[in-house]
Amino acid sequence: MIEDDGSARDRVMMARALVIARQSRFIAAPNPHVGCLLVKGDTVISEGRTQYAGEAHAEIMALRAAGTAAAGATVYVTLEPCSHHGRTPPCTDALIEAGVARVVAAMEDPNPRVSGRGLQRLREAGIRVECGLLAEQAEPIIKGFVLRMRRGRGRVRAKLAMSMDGRTAMASGESQWITGAPARADVQRQRAASCAILTGSGTVLADNCALTVRPESFADTLGEAQPPGVRQPLRVVLDSRRRVPATARILSADAPTLLLHATDAPAAALPAHVEQVAIPEGASGLDLTTVMRELATRQCNEILVECGPTLTGALLQAGLIDELIVYMAPCIMGSSARPLLQLPLDAMSDKVKLTTLDVRRVGEDWRFTLVPSASRQTKE
Amino acid sequence: MIEDDGSARDRVMMARALVIARQSRFIAAPNPHVGCLLVKGDTVISEGRTQYAGEAHAEIMALRAAGTAAAGATVYVTLEPCSHHGRTPPCTDALIEAGVARVVAAMEDPNPRVSGRGLQRLREAGIRVECGLLAEQAEPIIKGFVLRMRRGRGRVRAKLAMSMDGRTAMASGESQWITGAPARADVQRQRAASCAILTGSGTVLADNCALTVRPESFADTLGEAQPPGVRQPLRVVLDSRRRVPATARILSADAPTLLLHATDAPAAALPAHVEQVAIPEGASGLDLTTVMRELATRQCNEILVECGPTLTGALLQAGLIDELIVYMAPCIMGSSARPLLQLPLDAMSDKVKLTTLDVRRVGEDWRFTLVPSASRQTKE
Repeated sequence: MIEDDGSARDRVMMARALVIARQSRFIAAPNPHVGCLLVKGDTVISEGRTQYAGEAHAEIMALRAAGTAAAGATVYVTLEPCSHHGRTPPCTDALIEAGVARVVAAMEDPNPRVSGRGLQRLREAGIRVECGLLAEQAEPIIKGFVLRMRRGRGRVRAKLAMSMDGRTAMASGESQWITGAPARADVQRQRAASCAILTGSGTVLADNCALTVRPESFADTLGEAQPPGVRQPLRVVLDSRRRVPATARILSADAPTLLLHATDAPAAALPAHVEQVAIPEGASGLDLTTVMRELATRQCNEILVECGPTLTGALLQAGLIDELIVYMAPCIMGSSARPLLQLPLDAMSDKVKLTTLDVRRVGEDWRFTLVPSASRQTKE
Repeated sequence: MIEDDGSARDRVMMARALVIARQSRFIAAPNPHVGCLLVKGDTVISEGRTQYAGEAHAEIMALRAAGTAAAGATVYVTLEPCSHHGRTPPCTDALIEAGVARVVAAMEDPNPRVSGRGLQRLREAGIRVECGLLAEQAEPIIKGFVLRMRRGRGRVRAKLAMSMDGRTAMASGESQWITGAPARADVQRQRAASCAILTGSGTVLADNCALTVRPESFADTLGEAQPPGVRQPLRVVLDSRRRVPATARILSADAPTLLLHATDAPAAALPAHVEQVAIPEGASGLDLTTVMRELATRQCNEILVECGPTLTGALLQAGLIDELIVYMAPCIMGSSARPLLQLPLDAMSDKVKLTTLDVRRVGEDWRFTLVPSASRQTKE
């Protein structure tokens, strides 16, 4: 298929490994989702991808599928193989034992427990090792994991649905539906790829939202990706006064729920499966930096914020939003409807600059992925 | 260049004629801008495009350039040749006299004074005539002219510049600049292709805008289009109480200005070159349908609305906006800033649906071209 050009073949194989990695994005958390290929010459012997946490990593899946044919193979893997005992034994040992000849990794593992040690161990075992091929594509795929490892906080993305005139609900609170079914299915995909869905008590009291993943709503668009199965992201409710009633859908047993409240919140009789944690209060409501720290300790790589303009505005103001995912519907909801963000600014010089990462059409709607300016992000 | 397939050649030639037609969009008004090609076999003998009003039409320009070579040629023209004496003699007569063999027109002229009579006259002279080739591309190019002929009102397009959260100015009125230089140059192009720029006294008093065309600001992006020369669109100010002072930039002699005021407006000492016309008042302010009728009598094909949220909202509510041209900048201006449109709506069922015609990146900004739903357009 490819002429005798090793570097072109390497790129093709790594590109395929990246495709495989993405297929595990709905199941791998809190592990990074990784893809692995075992190759001899131009022939792919086997493929593997990260399984559920506690189950096999991508390398192990590929080695199992290859059996004895793994000996002498080249391994393409989207992340440095682990060298430590986590929930599973080190992948490096399995690769050495299988007798692979060469390992090409897209990037080093930012996990301080690995961070080059995996590659080093392979080299010491006499395996040829290269690192960095398509790193610029590999890192965005596991961005939340990378951020959590490097800065101690996963990637926080705020999902917003608005009209062309930037409105998220009528004055009455009515908001169903601004966007079309394809956009709502896309949100389901975003949820399924998240570790936690963060919302506020205001949104819960107004909408009685469940914030669960409904795989059937986007199963037809999954392609070759593995169905998300039963993994439900952690639902996180900021409810300083513990106002959410025990009967709220978000407290159902369908998915894990973490309710964060103020230290002096009134007592509440909530279902036993709802975890409750007290968080100190900041200037207005729970201290949001502490909230994010709490989620990091729970190994949340990807945090999807789905809440009203007040909490989204406060998170943006606190520099805690890495990306805005804005679904814009081709309609006008009018000047008395609710704003995109509750964020009063006085002068043009105060405006929050955004960098556009991606724009695409989703059904009749448009999805913008935007990064708030660095100055804003580091303001606090 | 093209194999012996007459229909393929016809399409290629007409596509070229459409390109030429667009080159006259800054100068032809109130005439439609038309492109014309004289062709023999695969050879283009000459090209012509509409000149300033009162000067030669596209067909005449092409005939002049061809000279005696026009005899026996095929004529590709983006609009049916005129058969009446307007500011210039009929093009049909010139084509017949030149002895052309065949005429291919993209569409019939919607002008009731032509409307098939031009083609009929050519046929009667023994010329082979076809009509309708690439009509779906030809009509949008002269949409304003077509609408004025068919419904008695030119195309009204409202230009809006907003932040990602749908805001057009800070609460103080500060709005310079929301969008970047490329978007502002694009607005200049929109102005240059318009017959009239409509605004309100509120915008004039707040911004002291000139609303003139500054060709130098977009000359570098004109490509092969003819420079707009000195044609300045008519500036139309809705000023019911005649509040705009004589010193306002919009009343300068740089461009024609029409000031529309209420019948009982206070007297005002304005420069003599400013035309003033009284318009009856509606429920709130000048009757907007009458305003549009006034512009139709002045042969305005393309009307660009550049005003604040109140007047834009009123025009939309009155069903008088054919297209919204929204420039969206990647920034957040916050919840106390001014809305896109002053248009209070109560329920989701009241929302104004829009159809997306075009989306494109302009510098760092995004330009959306949207059509309000038909039901809204015919509401009043």
